[in-house]
Parts: sequence; C-alpha cells; structure tokens
Amino acid sequence: MERKAIDTNALSEAILNGDRIALSRGITLVESRHPDHRSDANELVRKCMPAAGKAKRIGISGAPGVGKSTFIESLGKQIIQSGSKVAVLAVDPSSPISRGSILGDKTRMEWLSTNENAYIRPSPAGDTLGGVARATREAIILCEAAGFDHVVVETVGVGQSETAVKNLVDIFVLLLLPGAGDDLQGIKKGIVEMADIIVINKADGENMSAVNKAIGFYASALHLLPLKNEKWQVPVMSCSALFDTGMEKVLHKVMEYFAKIGSFVTENRQQQAKYWLKESVLEKLHQHFYSQESVSNAFKDMEKKVENGLIQPFEAADQIFAFYLDALKK
Amino acid sequence: MERKAIDTNALSEAILNGDRIALSRGITLVESRHPDHRSDANELVRKCMPAAGKAKRIGISGAPGVGKSTFIESLGKQIIQSGSKVAVLAVDPSSPISRGSILGDKTRMEWLSTNENAYIRPSPAGDTLGGVARATREAIILCEAAGFDHVVVETVGVGQSETAVKNLVDIFVLLLLPGAGDDLQGIKKGIVEMADIIVINKADGENMSAVNKAIGFYASALHLLPLKNEKWQVPVMSCSALFDTGMEKVLHKVMEYFAKIGSFVTENRQQQAKYWLKESVLEKLHQHFYSQESVSNAFKDMEKKVENGLIQPFEAADQIFAFYLDALKK
Repeated sequence: MERKAIDTNALSEAILNGDRIALSRGITLVESRHPDHRSDANELVRKCMPAAGKAKRIGISGAPGVGKSTFIESLGKQIIQSGSKVAVLAVDPSSPISRGSILGDKTRMEWLSTNENAYIRPSPAGDTLGGVARATREAIILCEAAGFDHVVVETVGVGQSETAVKNLVDIFVLLLLPGAGDDLQGIKKGIVEMADIIVINKADGENMSAVNKAIGFYASALHLLPLKNEKWQVPVMSCSALFDTGMEKVLHKVMEYFAKIGSFVTENRQQQAKYWLKESVLEKLHQHFYSQESVSNAFKDMEKKVENGLIQPFEAADQIFAFYLDALKK
Repeated sequence: MERKAIDTNALSEAILNGDRIALSRGITLVESRHPDHRSDANELVRKCMPAAGKAKRIGISGAPGVGKSTFIESLGKQIIQSGSKVAVLAVDPSSPISRGSILGDKTRMEWLSTNENAYIRPSPAGDTLGGVARATREAIILCEAAGFDHVVVETVGVGQSETAVKNLVDIFVLLLLPGAGDDLQGIKKGIVEMADIIVINKADGENMSAVNKAIGFYASALHLLPLKNEKWQVPVMSCSALFDTGMEKVLHKVMEYFAKIGSFVTENRQQQAKYWLKESVLEKLHQHFYSQESVSNAFKDMEKKVENGLIQPFEAADQIFAFYLDALKK
C-alpha cells in the first residue's frame, strides 16, 4: 500500500495557529505505531518545539471512583474562566480493562467538552509504557504549540503509569477518597510520596468526618517522609468537585506551587528529558535482547532451573548472555 | 603466566567437612574477578549446593555508628551458646570510603572472632553491585555447606546494598539509633519498608526517652504501610547490644519469624533466585551496550542535546540505538 504523504510544514503551521483539527491530526500522528509515520512525527514535533514548553503541566492521579473527571471539569472551568486555555490528556497504559473508563465518557466533562478554550483527548493506545509516554510527551508539546497554557494529564492511580506521568508533568496532584488507610485506598505504594498536592475529594454531606480522618492520616504520613523540596511543604486539602466547593483553594495552591518553585520546574524538565532518554534506550535494548528467540527460550528454561535450585542464577545469566552474543553473530 | 590448577573436588570435600581454611579459599575463589577462575568457582558452588540451603539467613543493616558489630557479636554469641554455628559475611559495594569500617576491625567482635563455631569474613571487593551480590550469595552457599546453620549478612545502611541484601537473606533486621525522624537517621528512604524486625539499639542510660520516641515514631510509620505478610506484623524493639540487654528478645523474635513464616522462606528464596537471574542478565546487557564506544559517545552527546531541548528524548534514544545496531554489525 502506498504511503500517504504528510505535509508536516502545513500541519505544524496549522497547529501553531491553534487549529484544533490540525492538533488532533498531529496527536494521531505522534501516537501512530506505524514505523513509516515516525520520521514525520519527529519532524512535526521538532517544528512545534520552539513554540512549546510554556504551559503549566499538571498531573492528576487517583484510583477509579475518586472523581477525577469531575475534578478536572471543575478545575478546568476555573482555569478557563480566569482567561486561560486548557488541554486535557490521559495516560492509561494498563489498557484493555480500564480503557474507556478514563476520559472515554466525555459527557463527564460536559462543560469542558463544549468549550472552545478546552481541548480533550482520550487515552492513547500503546503496548509499552515507553510508547504511551512518548505519545503523551509529544502530545503535550503539540498542545502547547497550539496555544494551550495549561495541560492536564490524567492517569488512573493503580499502576506504573504514575511514575511515567510524574515524569511528564511539573506538578503531581493526587486525589484520594475520604477515610484513612484502607490499604492506601487501592493506590500503589509509593504514590503518596510522589504527590506535590494531596486532595481529598468528595468532601460533602455525610463524608465530612471521614474527610477529616483522611486529612489527619495523610498529614501524618507526609510528616514521616523527608522533604522533597525545601521550598514546598506538600499540603493535604479537601474539596467537593461535584459541588464545586474548595476548588478555588486547590487551584490557588497549584498556582502557588508554580510561583514558588519556578526555577525548579525548568530544572525538573531537564531531569525528565534525561530520564526518558535513559528509559527509552533501555526499553529498546531489552526488547532487542528478548526478541532473540534463542535468548528468550534460554531465559524461560533457566528461570525454571534457577527456581528449582538446579543452577545458581548468576551462572544461568552467564549462559543466557552467551546465547545473546551468539545470536548477534548470525 | 600459567594458571594454577584448582582441585574443586578436594576443595569442596574439605568445605563439606567443615574445614575453615578450605572455606576461606573457596570464598576467595567465588570472589575472584579473574575470568579464568569463573568456571572453577561455578563448579565448586555446584558441588556445594546439595549440602546448602539449610541455614537461617539473617540480614542486619543500619547506618554507620548504629552499633552493628556489637549487635552481631552479642547475637552471634547467643546463637552459639544455644548450640548452633554462625558465619558472618559483609556486603559493602559502596567500597573505598566505607571499606574497613565494616568488619575490618575484627576486634569489635572479639568473642566471635576467637570462637570455633563462628566464622567471620570481611567485605568482598567488587566493582558492581551484581558482582558483590554474586560473591555474597555464593559465599552463603559455601558457609552452609561447611555446616554453619546461621549466616548473618551485614550491610551498611546507606546505599543500594540494602536491596541486594534483602534479596540474599530470609529475614531483614534494621538497626536504628534512639530518636525519631532526623531524616530517617541517614538511612535511605524505603529501607524501613524492607525491614522484618526493627531494633532500636543503644537503649541504655540517658538514651531511654529517645528510645521510646523512636519506638513510637517507627511503630506509627509502620502502621501507615500495608502489611507485607499477613502472618507477620513487623515489631519495633529495643536493646543494648553493648550491655547485652534485650538481646534474647530480639533473637527470640528472629526465631519466631522462621517458625511462623516457614513456607514463605522457601517461596521467597525462589523469588530471590529469579530476581538475581533477571538482574544479572540486565547488568550484563547494559555493560555490553555501554561498552560500545560509539554508543557511549552518542549517549553523552544526546544527553546534552536533550537537556538543552534540542531534540526530544525519544528521538534521541532511537538514534543512540541505531549506533548500537551498527556496532553489532562490525
């Protein structure tokens, strides 16, 4: 099949002019897993890069049911009403099962989805975390180039995707449910430590005593962690996204973060770029390694032997690696 | 230079007979970084494996100054007086600086170092964490084969070595100083979560109010973590290794762990073997990758470009990987 030529000049120009259809086409291009599309995607991103980097990149995470969509709808509305523009992207590499739950239902963000200053993009598909991260990182750049000065990245707080999102955004907001402990509410260990702001959502009606319990619990949990940044004490707040209460305070905290931590954001983005360079190189290397049939067969075989105590793991590793060196010679 | 032949048959037999000099020679062999020694080392370990695996493997970690040597001396003495035998090994890949501080001074374990049922082996040298872990893991096997039914692995609680040791032992005992917080006492974040038993050492004299503060602090810190194992609630205890107080209780807890968690230990060892297989394979692969001169040069170059926003990290990774594939063709 002949490849359809993509005019990256025209496409980047349209994106830089804020053309939403062009933006969507551009994101589809960077999301494409077709190898032929990669060089065009690279070219497009390169052309958009000079106009990018100026948005506040806000990560929002939390377990299913915590009310992320309602929260983003409410936060986004405020941002737009203050005269800014918001793009909302989602990262969801855990895929088949949860796909659809995340941003799939645009009606959950009714106000945003019909507002001309908002842009909502559902979860990119992807087989690998690295692939999804790449698509999301490049989508952020395109959104920024299209003039969105706030980019919200949503993720479902249950897997490895949080570490990815933490490394794609400037600030990481963790939503939690009222109530304490409960195996950290079904979120993965270590996520609380990643948060720059913790928000207990659904602070309304009969929930208030559970809200206060949660605030106390997480405030003391944070107290046990060393400070990540001397300039920033992670706050534990509460809100009701559904009833729009407490949301101004949350947005105010987000803005305070950017005001206080300004130079850190730049430094942080440089670290993130180096992080993704390293991660991406290793992901490629590992794929290459295990895609050698003799290697993956040897690995499976040795794993069983090691488990049964028939060989020491280090000697087994030597043998597997010999298969790799052999495979490279062919 | 001609290689000196090693008779692994004779050596393994002597080790199995409990010959301490043979044990030391065997450990020197598995520690050797000379490539010619590897196959002999593998052979020796293979011959010792059937007689190994029966010891209680106890990891003991804590920051410098916490009193690890005194603690091990006191614990080891008790174990020996109950009719058992103890081998003490050290892992210290952080090397040059701290080497010598760990077990270097055998006089700190005066009683153990002169007792025939104790065997003390100072820190193995090693350039890589994997190398040190391999040497330590194989040294454990040799000690077990030589009839030591308790193997204590000591590590200085400041680096990556804790994760390594956690994956070499059955139970991980963390020693802490009296007093709370203090940036988690100079130990690395995440180490408290690895502990199976937490012991506040130096519980004597004027320290007692600080000891109680530490107990309260770490008990509530643990309370915030999800249970690792339903059968085991991590205890926070105190002792004075110097004055030999509270030590029986600590040893009793260690033994209680093995009694309660028996089947878990077997399963855990299988997981550990698979962990080292995977880690060791990856370490080899990464070394191979970065040892290609064109690859490491490209990486340095791209890292700078990525940091300065001249190229996207994922595109840079593609380019670095292309250098690797090229290098393999040569």
